[in-house]
Amino acid sequence: MSKEQRLKDFLLSGDQTYLPHVSIDCVIFGFHENQLKVLLLRWKERGKWCLPGGFVKRKESVDESAIRTLRERTGLDNIFLKQFHTFGDPDREKGKLPFKLMGARKTWISERFITVGYWALVEFSKVAPQPDWLSTECQWCDIHKVPKLIYDHNAIILKALETLRVSLNEQPVGYSLLPEKFTMPELQRLYETILDKPLDRRNFQKKMLAMDILERLKERKLGGAHKAPYLYKFDKRKYQKAMRWGLKAGF
Amino acid sequence: MSKEQRLKDFLLSGDQTYLPHVSIDCVIFGFHENQLKVLLLRWKERGKWCLPGGFVKRKESVDESAIRTLRERTGLDNIFLKQFHTFGDPDREKGKLPFKLMGARKTWISERFITVGYWALVEFSKVAPQPDWLSTECQWCDIHKVPKLIYDHNAIILKALETLRVSLNEQPVGYSLLPEKFTMPELQRLYETILDKPLDRRNFQKKMLAMDILERLKERKLGGAHKAPYLYKFDKRKYQKAMRWGLKAGF
Repeated sequence: MSKEQRLKDFLLSGDQTYLPHVSIDCVIFGFHENQLKVLLLRWKERGKWCLPGGFVKRKESVDESAIRTLRERTGLDNIFLKQFHTFGDPDREKGKLPFKLMGARKTWISERFITVGYWALVEFSKVAPQPDWLSTECQWCDIHKVPKLIYDHNAIILKALETLRVSLNEQPVGYSLLPEKFTMPELQRLYETILDKPLDRRNFQKKMLAMDILERLKERKLGGAHKAPYLYKFDKRKYQKAMRWGLKAGF
Repeated sequence: MSKEQRLKDFLLSGDQTYLPHVSIDCVIFGFHENQLKVLLLRWKERGKWCLPGGFVKRKESVDESAIRTLRERTGLDNIFLKQFHTFGDPDREKGKLPFKLMGARKTWISERFITVGYWALVEFSKVAPQPDWLSTECQWCDIHKVPKLIYDHNAIILKALETLRVSLNEQPVGYSLLPEKFTMPELQRLYETILDKPLDRRNFQKKMLAMDILERLKERKLGGAHKAPYLYKFDKRKYQKAMRWGLKAGF
């Protein structure tokens, strides 16, 4: 099937495969060398940037559709996606235009969609995102330099960022983002990057240790002119418990 | 229009007014005399208990639909509803039967729905819920005695409760649930009820004061045999800031 025929089928009768009115969008945060980035696609149809998103198959759960969509649209697999908010404003797709192929014809795709937002945090050097047949580019973008995206996608990123920041207080973050052994300053820089503000060294250490999810190793980090800092690793069992039940530091 | 005609119209052509495939459900927690309850409706059609829920009008936001639905179905108004999770399992409406009026006929209402969950916490003596034309009863039910509800509504309550508990660590709760002036033991009992576990008195007081949202009054509570406890009230400005930005106790 040609790409054009494939797109035409999708636009005309995609609702045989997908639920109308419901979409998903993924905010994939990447962390690398103390920078926070977000993954964007450039949409072939309009040349504009957007979040990787898609639709829910009629026999698939919304969570499954998010995982599948991310894989199909960017090549990213095995990413732990977390649902954070559903965006249901009737004007959220302001400026929505019919696909060029469709002319003025109205189908399921021109109707109103509410979208379920998912976020994930990945070590971006470990993944090599690829654009799909609907996109010309797939790129990491510095969180401070996100361009004007389609629809309400800028607002979706802001809400995801807010959720990520709040979640630092209730669940540990970092297991998949740091090397197996790391120092307290390395962990602090991860938190500072996400929160986008400097943290007090002593308070940070005190709070992290109070979470009771770190194990201090006997080794110290080698190299460097100063006193070698201790290495830590996550206590996997306690970490997983905290991811499920929240942090000890709570009530 | 007779009730039967009204229901028939809704079942046959409700999708002219409402978006298909999307519903909302509200988990209204009530707090009274140290008991946590949840508001349930008994569904006329099947005699079974369910959460107050409804559909999204084609020109209305999902948030607005939740507020309207709650008002229409229970008479409750001016309640601050918070979206917490969207439930999108394809089997979530297991056991869904056609309405008796419809026989075997399939319409928009027999299709798959994903539902957006909202929760709220209210002082239940302040509200007098009333069942609507689709329900025979509207009652508060002890959180420990919730019967088997339709579809995945029991799971929706569990998820809402989990969210409420986690949110205690990130945002203050209680402004609308306590009298203007209250004692630390009264506030502690509210938290203990929500968390369903006893809390250490000294730790609780320390954590609450660290949130920096309470103002200690010069008055003390009168009556009682023991030393009169101090009265507190919420610092409204700081409280609202914390509701928006999270608690100081975080990173």
